[in-house]
Amino acid sequence: MSSNNGYHVAIVGATGAVGEHLIRTLEERDFPIRRLTFMASKRSSGKKMQFKGEEIPIVEAKGELFKNVDIAFFSAGGSVSKALAPEAVKHGTVVIDNTSAFRMEPNVPLVVPEVNEEDLKNHNGIIANPNCSTIQMVVSLEPIRKKYGLKRVLVSTYQAVSGAGNRAVDELYMQSKEIMEGKKPEANILPVKNDPKHYPIAFNAIPQIDVFQDNGFTFEEMKMINETRKIMHMPDLKVGATCVRIPVVRGHSESVYFEVEKPNVTPNQIRSVLAEAPGVILQDRPSEQIYPLPLDSVNRREVFVGRIRKDLDDEYGFHMWVVSDNLLKGAAWNSIQIAESLQKLNLI
Amino acid sequence: MSSNNGYHVAIVGATGAVGEHLIRTLEERDFPIRRLTFMASKRSSGKKMQFKGEEIPIVEAKGELFKNVDIAFFSAGGSVSKALAPEAVKHGTVVIDNTSAFRMEPNVPLVVPEVNEEDLKNHNGIIANPNCSTIQMVVSLEPIRKKYGLKRVLVSTYQAVSGAGNRAVDELYMQSKEIMEGKKPEANILPVKNDPKHYPIAFNAIPQIDVFQDNGFTFEEMKMINETRKIMHMPDLKVGATCVRIPVVRGHSESVYFEVEKPNVTPNQIRSVLAEAPGVILQDRPSEQIYPLPLDSVNRREVFVGRIRKDLDDEYGFHMWVVSDNLLKGAAWNSIQIAESLQKLNLI
Repeated sequence: MSSNNGYHVAIVGATGAVGEHLIRTLEERDFPIRRLTFMASKRSSGKKMQFKGEEIPIVEAKGELFKNVDIAFFSAGGSVSKALAPEAVKHGTVVIDNTSAFRMEPNVPLVVPEVNEEDLKNHNGIIANPNCSTIQMVVSLEPIRKKYGLKRVLVSTYQAVSGAGNRAVDELYMQSKEIMEGKKPEANILPVKNDPKHYPIAFNAIPQIDVFQDNGFTFEEMKMINETRKIMHMPDLKVGATCVRIPVVRGHSESVYFEVEKPNVTPNQIRSVLAEAPGVILQDRPSEQIYPLPLDSVNRREVFVGRIRKDLDDEYGFHMWVVSDNLLKGAAWNSIQIAESLQKLNLI
Repeated sequence: MSSNNGYHVAIVGATGAVGEHLIRTLEERDFPIRRLTFMASKRSSGKKMQFKGEEIPIVEAKGELFKNVDIAFFSAGGSVSKALAPEAVKHGTVVIDNTSAFRMEPNVPLVVPEVNEEDLKNHNGIIANPNCSTIQMVVSLEPIRKKYGLKRVLVSTYQAVSGAGNRAVDELYMQSKEIMEGKKPEANILPVKNDPKHYPIAFNAIPQIDVFQDNGFTFEEMKMINETRKIMHMPDLKVGATCVRIPVVRGHSESVYFEVEKPNVTPNQIRSVLAEAPGVILQDRPSEQIYPLPLDSVNRREVFVGRIRKDLDDEYGFHMWVVSDNLLKGAAWNSIQIAESLQKLNLI
């Protein structure tokens, strides 16, 4: 389709936390839209959502609706993507999928535009948007890798509740009230909706995000490991991850330890690289107590990096603190950036 | 003094978060007490606090009051300890100091009874209680070191607000309410009372605990590094730390990566060692979603360990998740354990 008249864009999962931010971000950007279709589950069909002041009806997501759709953003869970994305592709739609359904498939590019925009050239209809915690980490690591090489990454995450959806956020607020009133908090959603046990997240920290794998890591941790390797084209990069949910609404934080390949690199050299890096804002002035905070990252599209310091024992080792809005760079904004890159590279 | 009639015990900083828990823990234990003196700042003098149903008046802390005091627990800030602990020692009092004032002095034992109880034999009147986040980590690492050796530790902490005192907890609750009511949260205490800038902790994560050092690490991070080396008698152990405050009231959590010296160690071997270790409760059954949670650690004296798994790249590397009540094992309980060890070893 020509971009002259704009594209027919569909959003699948329009009513979810990420869906809402896809709509808001499309309103703020100049991406050319000829027509917009909002899809969701049967439950939401018939409702309406606003786009630039216009009311758009929500329709139940179905394969045949993708006829004439140029680009579809999927964010309605892995099973919906698995069922409908291949059907959309048959109709000629380019799918930008925010779930983990296709991320590790060899013929599906997994793209963070600041890192591997060129991978879009090999797409076969589906492009995967990486996991939120992976995206912000690779945005901060790639410029360092380019200049100084990268041998190893160990990350511990401090992840926001909105990553588990709007209902999880409601539950965080409800539990916070219950605990402050001396009541026993009720838990029905976190850590994993369909796992048997649920724990309160208010005034707590839960070291489980997504289901456990046989190796003792969670699926979220394995996403960070495998997706980082795929996006950075480093299949043998050493990556270890511990993923933890904390009572923050929006903004994932990460304590990242990494080792570079070149000797004698200084923290100031790392700072210089990050100060110039696309999509990164350096916030690193300890003497003025300047460092990234998740509360400050809300509604920002950038990745914030600070607390950069050299490890005291390993001469190739560094520590840093990386924060970004998980609903924007971690999801909606990265997806729309992919669409903008596709347009720029004449791939749609 | 003979323990037959019990000891004259003083608590300096009786009204603080740790002071309260020193009193509660002494009530629960059988430590023989003949007389009890509660000291605090001038502001609290004249007030009374309960001990086993008896009202005890609070007196203003002064050097001459330590005459005839056998054991004094100090938890009223570093400046009070620096001023009064040496005076207490002159009167023959054994001081168990919960501040960082004397921890790194070569002639002051820094003691976690499960790890280095024998160091008490070298005391010269002052015994230092380590930093809360250090204590729980060394309790979990020492049994592993004994059996399999230890080459390296990298820790990221998830620290509770009560570590900064009762007023910080009040502020967390107030800010939580303000944010849920759509108001701008007011911040006056965290991250560091006397630093110029303050940030809200409610629904946030602050990567600063204590003041910054010239090397880019905070003093809290340097405490974890230096105290771990001193307690474990491993002056060259490689330790890296990132310390972060999160909106949890009580219970510090830690994501700990460590490397052992022996080859071919399995996660089950680490689990076996920890299941038998003093002061440790193993909570590690991923298939049943059993892992330590800070909410569950409140009012417990033990250190809880779970999420044990082998690093996927380093054959000597492991990850684990360590949680403990920062006011008990991290402070009050460890101090009283030191007193019990002194009695057991006939050192008072």
